[in-house]
Amino acid sequence: MPAARGYAAQSSETPLAPFSFERRDLRPNDVRIAIRYCGVCHSDLHQVRGEWGNTVYPCIPGHEIIGEVTEVGAQVTRFKAGDTVGVGCLVDSCQHCDACDHDLEQYCENGFVGTYNGEDKITGEITFGGYSDAIVVREEFVLNIRHGADQLAATAPLLCAGITTWSPLRHWGAGPGKKVGIVGIGGLGHMGIKLAHALGAHVVAFTTSESKRQDALDLGADEVVISRDAEQMAAHARSFDLIVNTVAASHDLDAFTALLKRDGTLTLVGVPEHAHPSPSVVNLIFGRRSIAGSLIGGIAETQEMLDFCAEHGITADIEMIAMPEIEQAYARMLKSDVKYRFVIDMATLD
Amino acid sequence: MPAARGYAAQSSETPLAPFSFERRDLRPNDVRIAIRYCGVCHSDLHQVRGEWGNTVYPCIPGHEIIGEVTEVGAQVTRFKAGDTVGVGCLVDSCQHCDACDHDLEQYCENGFVGTYNGEDKITGEITFGGYSDAIVVREEFVLNIRHGADQLAATAPLLCAGITTWSPLRHWGAGPGKKVGIVGIGGLGHMGIKLAHALGAHVVAFTTSESKRQDALDLGADEVVISRDAEQMAAHARSFDLIVNTVAASHDLDAFTALLKRDGTLTLVGVPEHAHPSPSVVNLIFGRRSIAGSLIGGIAETQEMLDFCAEHGITADIEMIAMPEIEQAYARMLKSDVKYRFVIDMATLD
Repeated sequence: MPAARGYAAQSSETPLAPFSFERRDLRPNDVRIAIRYCGVCHSDLHQVRGEWGNTVYPCIPGHEIIGEVTEVGAQVTRFKAGDTVGVGCLVDSCQHCDACDHDLEQYCENGFVGTYNGEDKITGEITFGGYSDAIVVREEFVLNIRHGADQLAATAPLLCAGITTWSPLRHWGAGPGKKVGIVGIGGLGHMGIKLAHALGAHVVAFTTSESKRQDALDLGADEVVISRDAEQMAAHARSFDLIVNTVAASHDLDAFTALLKRDGTLTLVGVPEHAHPSPSVVNLIFGRRSIAGSLIGGIAETQEMLDFCAEHGITADIEMIAMPEIEQAYARMLKSDVKYRFVIDMATLD
Repeated sequence: MPAARGYAAQSSETPLAPFSFERRDLRPNDVRIAIRYCGVCHSDLHQVRGEWGNTVYPCIPGHEIIGEVTEVGAQVTRFKAGDTVGVGCLVDSCQHCDACDHDLEQYCENGFVGTYNGEDKITGEITFGGYSDAIVVREEFVLNIRHGADQLAATAPLLCAGITTWSPLRHWGAGPGKKVGIVGIGGLGHMGIKLAHALGAHVVAFTTSESKRQDALDLGADEVVISRDAEQMAAHARSFDLIVNTVAASHDLDAFTALLKRDGTLTLVGVPEHAHPSPSVVNLIFGRRSIAGSLIGGIAETQEMLDFCAEHGITADIEMIAMPEIEQAYARMLKSDVKYRFVIDMATLD
């Protein structure tokens, strides 16, 4: 099997460090990809540090992958060597359950295979992610990238941060005439603002920091609300069709359900380490409001989002780092000190 | 103004007792109704005992009203003396907001007027409910009753317990091919089972008491699940389109969200005195599930439900009581010792 190199954690206590391993030989429906860029997601940090309790070591994280096809299996029809492609959070699913039949592989009833720390459906081997020089992925889970060559690094975060906000925006109908809130202006939130704005919605960004006001407006927000300011919040009572909440830290959800119109939805895309305070049932009953969850997005809607972004010139706002800087980047990410996503230049792997 | 008699609480500490008062003179769009039957709702007890902190005394509860029209105002067109009619939880709303425009007066953006402890929009007087011999109600909030004369007492609970379960069943599409859960087999739950069954859904009743199994089947449930039995619950994992949860006592919602299909909804219709444990965000995200709330129902859908019930021969299962027995009925209701709704025979008022 072809040799590969990456950065792996050997335990929850050890920093990411150079690691040699092998990528599998191509199956007939596989695509081999030379990785150019990989975004840095908060999930990567949770996983390598064992914070979800399910990490198999060594662990190579990374699921915002942009690269170039170097080789394809005998049955691959959609890709050829030289194509620019992307890989997101999923690399396989059963392909025959109701969710897969509806192009919603992220909800696969038989369990999707994550890009890292997943279990290959054929060999049972643990998957290794995008902090590496190459990856082999089943054709159905490879995305076409139509962005320009100078946009590729900034396209990487679309594969997780982009689709995670795109999917609820589309599912709950963000568009012209709709008032949409985005809570939190980080890796996910900044994409949520850009995408909701490009979809034609009236976008309100919620942040706890006055210092992010101008940034949010620059990203495309029509209004910015400091969520700790009760008066600013009250001015938006009962006015939102949809609020996509990207904040995973435990916080008061009632402040946001109170801002929903009748039949409005507060959609959570982050899992808090400690539970949110129990949400008010009164806020739900008086207004037939909902609190929902949404997970990444399916492959077809990821392609739709990528094409939409290419057409509208949308990418993430990124800071490029070299692979050896990953632990410093994690330290900064923990302080929310990044605008708004780190992307690893994989040419710096060696 | 015409003299009226009812049963009122003079304070949160005093039992309901005979009370003389006046009903207003007819406005041009008013209907005067001689009350025949009034259902006993748990809300009545909360309100008269001041448990919601907003009770104005004296308080006459009752919002499941069946009676006969005795007089109509000059502009009333839809009713005439002698008509059998009903009045539910609402007696007025603004009639011009977005909710009212959508026949959803229960979500009136300017506040609906409750049948009791509400504030009349014209005089500001506090409304008195159905534990009385007569009521005067704006035409738009009076319902046609098409049930037979021998069914009238058992029709009363449709005005609150019926519509409170009907509205979410209809809104979330309960019908043939859908699997619908009803949590709790009490006043609301027993109606939920009957209505979901009549709508053609596959109905699963959830109860904590094995003793209610046969009753639930008799009411129309296709299956009964003891919700404390983890094994029985697990057998229904990820299978429900909708679960209507009528239990207001604080309890674990995760046991039910785990039973929802992808895109399924757990709809709460009761407000717990103490918050439910904070629901799992993971259960919502993995499956794009929702927790929603629903409040009673609008006037048009209440009429739709009443007509549907008349056509299908559906009424509540009731125990008739005399007005002076109300405090004993409350004591039994607190122990869930009623199958499944008390209805007051208003002929016993004197």
